[in-house]
Amino acid sequence: MTEHPVVRVGIVFSGRQSPGGHNVIWGLYDAIKAHNPNSKLIGFLGGTDGLFAQKTMDISDEALASYKNQGGYDMLGRTRDQIRTTEQVEATLAICQALKLDSLVIIGGVTSNTDAAQLAETFAELKCPTKVVGVPVTLNGDLKNQFVETTVGFDTICKVNSQLISNVCTDALSAEKYYYFIRFMGQKASHVALECALQSHPNMVILGEEVSLSKLTIFDITKQICDAVQARAEKDKYHGVVLIPEGLVETIPELYALLQEIHGLHNKGVSVENISSHLSPWASALFEFLPPFIRKQLLLHPESDESAQLSQIETEKLLAQLVENEMNKRLKEGTYKGKKFNAICHFFGYQARGALPSKFDCDYAYVLGHVCYHILAAGLNGYMATVTNLKSPVNKWKCGAAPITSMMTVKRWSRGPTASQIGKPAVHMASVDLKGKAYELLRQNSSSFLMEDIYRNPGPLQFEGPGAETKPISLCVEDRDYMGRIKQLQEYLEKVKSIVKPGCSQDVLKAAVSAMASVTEMLTIMSTPPFSSQATI
Amino acid sequence: MTEHPVVRVGIVFSGRQSPGGHNVIWGLYDAIKAHNPNSKLIGFLGGTDGLFAQKTMDISDEALASYKNQGGYDMLGRTRDQIRTTEQVEATLAICQALKLDSLVIIGGVTSNTDAAQLAETFAELKCPTKVVGVPVTLNGDLKNQFVETTVGFDTICKVNSQLISNVCTDALSAEKYYYFIRFMGQKASHVALECALQSHPNMVILGEEVSLSKLTIFDITKQICDAVQARAEKDKYHGVVLIPEGLVETIPELYALLQEIHGLHNKGVSVENISSHLSPWASALFEFLPPFIRKQLLLHPESDESAQLSQIETEKLLAQLVENEMNKRLKEGTYKGKKFNAICHFFGYQARGALPSKFDCDYAYVLGHVCYHILAAGLNGYMATVTNLKSPVNKWKCGAAPITSMMTVKRWSRGPTASQIGKPAVHMASVDLKGKAYELLRQNSSSFLMEDIYRNPGPLQFEGPGAETKPISLCVEDRDYMGRIKQLQEYLEKVKSIVKPGCSQDVLKAAVSAMASVTEMLTIMSTPPFSSQATI
Repeated sequence: MTEHPVVRVGIVFSGRQSPGGHNVIWGLYDAIKAHNPNSKLIGFLGGTDGLFAQKTMDISDEALASYKNQGGYDMLGRTRDQIRTTEQVEATLAICQALKLDSLVIIGGVTSNTDAAQLAETFAELKCPTKVVGVPVTLNGDLKNQFVETTVGFDTICKVNSQLISNVCTDALSAEKYYYFIRFMGQKASHVALECALQSHPNMVILGEEVSLSKLTIFDITKQICDAVQARAEKDKYHGVVLIPEGLVETIPELYALLQEIHGLHNKGVSVENISSHLSPWASALFEFLPPFIRKQLLLHPESDESAQLSQIETEKLLAQLVENEMNKRLKEGTYKGKKFNAICHFFGYQARGALPSKFDCDYAYVLGHVCYHILAAGLNGYMATVTNLKSPVNKWKCGAAPITSMMTVKRWSRGPTASQIGKPAVHMASVDLKGKAYELLRQNSSSFLMEDIYRNPGPLQFEGPGAETKPISLCVEDRDYMGRIKQLQEYLEKVKSIVKPGCSQDVLKAAVSAMASVTEMLTIMSTPPFSSQATI
Repeated sequence: MTEHPVVRVGIVFSGRQSPGGHNVIWGLYDAIKAHNPNSKLIGFLGGTDGLFAQKTMDISDEALASYKNQGGYDMLGRTRDQIRTTEQVEATLAICQALKLDSLVIIGGVTSNTDAAQLAETFAELKCPTKVVGVPVTLNGDLKNQFVETTVGFDTICKVNSQLISNVCTDALSAEKYYYFIRFMGQKASHVALECALQSHPNMVILGEEVSLSKLTIFDITKQICDAVQARAEKDKYHGVVLIPEGLVETIPELYALLQEIHGLHNKGVSVENISSHLSPWASALFEFLPPFIRKQLLLHPESDESAQLSQIETEKLLAQLVENEMNKRLKEGTYKGKKFNAICHFFGYQARGALPSKFDCDYAYVLGHVCYHILAAGLNGYMATVTNLKSPVNKWKCGAAPITSMMTVKRWSRGPTASQIGKPAVHMASVDLKGKAYELLRQNSSSFLMEDIYRNPGPLQFEGPGAETKPISLCVEDRDYMGRIKQLQEYLEKVKSIVKPGCSQDVLKAAVSAMASVTEMLTIMSTPPFSSQATI
């Protein structure tokens, strides 16, 4: 044990609280102490603001005791979630040097890990010996790539939300008189919505990615829902459950354009009261069409916290009202002959974010904590801790480390008020893959979900018993074993080499050269822009 | 087995869905079939509307299979929740006779059981042989008296809500920047709010019963919350969780008076647009003071479904806004020097009502189902199935039956738009007992709850493991063993008799006569109005 050197490690929460975050600290602590009891783990109190101000606590067994397997980030807290400006980077550098840290571990999502990579770069340039390590923890599930199968917290959030959605479905089926419109947190990508739909089988789910792809307007979406309501009414069904991801509002083209105009006017210093009169005629017409409560919400200043603003736009109420108006119109015109449409709206936000983590998230986070130790012990800088093959039992999980830069891309176009500047490399949020197996599963079932009320209630998150071991459906159906496939490819290449070597027939050699030439050409084309929409740096 | 006669029993859901309701059917079915396999249990589809229309299904093992231990009322559904008018009673009578029912079992809360009692009376008068049996099932927990310790569904609702409240508390403690105002379902009494507060330890809870007793105005409540926010700010705490029961709005005197005026105008046929101009000067001033969104909600027509209206008044948003205004004012005036007050509002409604029932509710409902059989087998009419000593393990539960009329009282005064007419006997909603032990427990802890953030997370409802056996805290601390106490009293009386008999000393006899005279006088006074605020019929 004493062969291992003493290490000093700092750890900070950067990003919104995600269930399981505490277990990363626990795992890292156990790993550090197991290798040398004199090593130290230092937590920064109050997130990145605490980091800059050097507010620290020594992590000890006593301090950890009441946070093991617990939700929230309250052991250390979080604040700004940003280490980006020159001042912030310099402050971090000074503190890492003052505390003589061998490593700084940053727990967070896409933006925090982008910051981690850039910090690592700066530290390396300035010969600061502190190694920066990132850990993929975000409830949105949108940090997802060839190395990261899912993030810590996603499983819990989906389970808690699915429980609640299912309860509402049961309620809908009992009362048989309301349509429930449920919006829930999860930022711009619709991973949470997709997973929850697969778990609870609501009648409809509108994914932002679908809306984006088909460029659906708010009227198209309204019409889609109304047609569904009407089809159900013909089967004498006057209840239903519709899921609305939080980020939907930004994927609807005309609403997005309107939001952009409003943000532009905000930035020009136009006061909230005057914004509506400064809008372009087109945007103004749309604005006036929208119900007053949504107008007010759209005008909210984004401030620093864009996601808080997003969460304040009640898209579920907007859609419910538009659908009600349209159904009333159809009723009047006689094209709809059913009962009056009644909607109840719900927002599932903060009640899921602070949940006790699921067994899967507890395990995953704890293992990631251990992996962090091995990354820093190996002296790697700017790496993210990874665990793959997660759909298998824990003893088959594969631990690893990946350079964060390998997950970074440069976007050719910028979209959405929060997108980074064009040309700046970043770990980008992953959208739901509309060609992926999870989405395919949803599509295969969507018409029976819509019409047949085959609601599924996974029940509350269980810590013991048969339900305790379940994992996200999207994780299990998607085949994300990237490193496994790389290995498979290498085996093929070896096989070709072993078949085609001096002594093989002319024909075999010819066939091999010709085949490999076309494979190479195809791959070259596929790897060159503009075929790939993003360029890897 | 064949000694028991064949019986034909009808069962109907009357009242809002409450987790565990299905298990009453299961328990009754098992009891009926165990006593005679040829007996029949007939379910009415679509609640009382299905009863009037004689829409029935035969309950069978196959039909039950997918509803055992499941939430919602979707096996049979529910609609009107009323058997009250002459037409409704006559329709029920005709159907019971047509189906040759030996018994009709009505599953519901206070109003449904009042209907059951009146129906039983009518059936008896008209010599209809069908016996009416009531079952105490309501998530509000407000059917509570000497015979009924708690209702089916209350435990589940409190557990689901406490889980969510606790998650929000964890979130508050992690982000340290928001006050969460959480309103949840539970009708006028605040039993759910009290139990949830005991389970999750939020910073504040405002019980309708407290507001009623102290006649607090909306300004008093706002001030109370503001003072709490200020006291916490002085300890550098800018987060918190405040629970708001759904019925609060009706217990605030001036809001209640305003609602009454609005209802009066509704009933006079004044259209919604014109109501505000018809209000009395005082009500009008209050109305104009309130934020527009609340004005709109107050004007909603109560229709038949008063509780749906209640659930649409966003009291949490009203209070959050009033507190924000007041804190901004104090900030401006310099009396408050902390950070800006930020609130986030939540309504926990339908997502709890459709939950999978807890183990306790599953067991309780199943046993009540069995009790129903024994009531009808005994030929009792107008009785409610009861189980007492619920805080003990299942094998110590005491099954019983109580005449519903013994739970009925005549209110001397009527309050609230939904109160029954003066002078009409009814099973009344029980308020939270402000002299009871559960409330005392809350009061003892309220200042540490407020200041110390000793949030408790009971976690999601568990079906296995150590948490699966927990019961409502209010049930466990309250000593509601009424029949046990009656027995105890009888023992005392016997003891006095055995001491004071011919042969005892003159002194002992004198002391006994004098003591019993004063006991008798005291009890006579206490049992005579106007001392008791309600008169038992």
